[in-house]
Amino acid sequence: MSLAIRRLAVIGVGLIGGSLARALRAGGLVEEIVGCGRGRANLDEAVALGVIDRYTHDIGDAVRDADMVFLAVPLGAMREAFDAMRATLPPDALITDGGSAKGSVVADCRSAAPELLGRFVPGHPIAGNERNGVAASLADLYRDRRVILTPLPENDAAAVARVRAMWQACGAHVMEMSVQHHDEVLAATSHLPHMLAFGLVDMLARMKENDEIFLYAAGGFRDFTRIASSNPVMWRDICIANREALSPMLAAFAEEMSELARSIGEADADHLLTIFERAKAARDRYVDGLK
Amino acid sequence: MSLAIRRLAVIGVGLIGGSLARALRAGGLVEEIVGCGRGRANLDEAVALGVIDRYTHDIGDAVRDADMVFLAVPLGAMREAFDAMRATLPPDALITDGGSAKGSVVADCRSAAPELLGRFVPGHPIAGNERNGVAASLADLYRDRRVILTPLPENDAAAVARVRAMWQACGAHVMEMSVQHHDEVLAATSHLPHMLAFGLVDMLARMKENDEIFLYAAGGFRDFTRIASSNPVMWRDICIANREALSPMLAAFAEEMSELARSIGEADADHLLTIFERAKAARDRYVDGLK
Repeated sequence: MSLAIRRLAVIGVGLIGGSLARALRAGGLVEEIVGCGRGRANLDEAVALGVIDRYTHDIGDAVRDADMVFLAVPLGAMREAFDAMRATLPPDALITDGGSAKGSVVADCRSAAPELLGRFVPGHPIAGNERNGVAASLADLYRDRRVILTPLPENDAAAVARVRAMWQACGAHVMEMSVQHHDEVLAATSHLPHMLAFGLVDMLARMKENDEIFLYAAGGFRDFTRIASSNPVMWRDICIANREALSPMLAAFAEEMSELARSIGEADADHLLTIFERAKAARDRYVDGLK
Repeated sequence: MSLAIRRLAVIGVGLIGGSLARALRAGGLVEEIVGCGRGRANLDEAVALGVIDRYTHDIGDAVRDADMVFLAVPLGAMREAFDAMRATLPPDALITDGGSAKGSVVADCRSAAPELLGRFVPGHPIAGNERNGVAASLADLYRDRRVILTPLPENDAAAVARVRAMWQACGAHVMEMSVQHHDEVLAATSHLPHMLAFGLVDMLARMKENDEIFLYAAGGFRDFTRIASSNPVMWRDICIANREALSPMLAAFAEEMSELARSIGEADADHLLTIFERAKAARDRYVDGLK
């Protein structure tokens, strides 16, 4: 199977969408790239940088004559995007996305454009940083990163294989899992940590003399709270999109922290050491696994 | 006032104690440095590296003829250290320490050696990393870092000034606050984040298929959980030493996370955005303040 893409439509030309465009272009795998978004300045910059060839503000126009569509809009805008492409999407075109939660995007497609489900292969590249916009995009953002695909019963094998090949061409390691499992894994490894970082910084910011408190924060605090500098609107959308997995997990964590507070209050040395040793062993194993 | 130290006794020659020794030696501010500890290999290495001139395993011997004593032992070993130096500490010698909680160290001195309180100026250098042992020590570990002193009513001004001058000679910015305020500030900015990192990694490690879960953790997870690779025994001691400040703060945080879980479950978009925006603003302000 040849990967060659005749016309790629990138809906949302930011860090995620722009980096896919750059990677495919760098690999010579795409003939034409059409960008679509709202902000004119960002899209002009995308053209100037050579990330896209041209752009439109209309999703229906963007997908006309495309054979691959990449949806990289905020989770809160997915439903509208599916709806907007119904009339003009060519019958042989595939759709994939970069959303951080998958259940909500699948539900959006099912409700807005159920006839597109067979050609929509949901995906999630595990990459990114705190930066936004096409200026932050990189041709090698996905190199050696994981991309999770969550194929649907409606997808045929050729569609999944084509989306997989596209990500592999960007240097990514592609794996597959169910929509539900994806959403639980990401709630645990990404969404929950973001809630703790946002919550901690917010609690400190509301303390008396909060500017003084931050003065004494050491290097570890900077690393620990880095993710609290992430985009608030994006994270509001992620929380709501993945609320079924995230809400009970955060509630369970809160209960565990409440128990840990009791153990500390009671100076339960053995219990504290057990938790800290188990965590350190798991964290060291995880970091070793990255090498 | 001349800072020159005739004989410095470093009780606990690890990252913290070794770095103070290196900094004072590099500045030509100390004539002789005597190390004290349990592990022979680490102390031999300290001599080989020139961090200390000689060592003993006996605290009473180490402080004999010293004019400055730096206590860098774990919080759980402070009380015994005060007791062990009572008989031989010269009357003009000062004591300071590097403990991450101050109330417990002051209480240890008060109960083990109340006659030393006037010469004990409690301190806490806000520096360090996940590494241990003298091999990790650095002459510039304290450069441009903050050192908090928590002088006691029993201290005379000359004693506090001499300890302050010692840290300034290492390039540190020295500030003073009460013991209680120190313990609250550090509970918020250091001890609480460590509990969340240890707790999160521990919870994930206890999930089904936990090794698979860690596979999908992205870069943010690595930064967020770095402090969960810290020394479990040290953190057990810190939790217990600072339990009066830390336990209620962790309980309050747990309650807030429980409320956040409810807000997510109810898709309360406005409330989520308020928290995330406030946190991002505070975190960005904090990072700007570091520049």
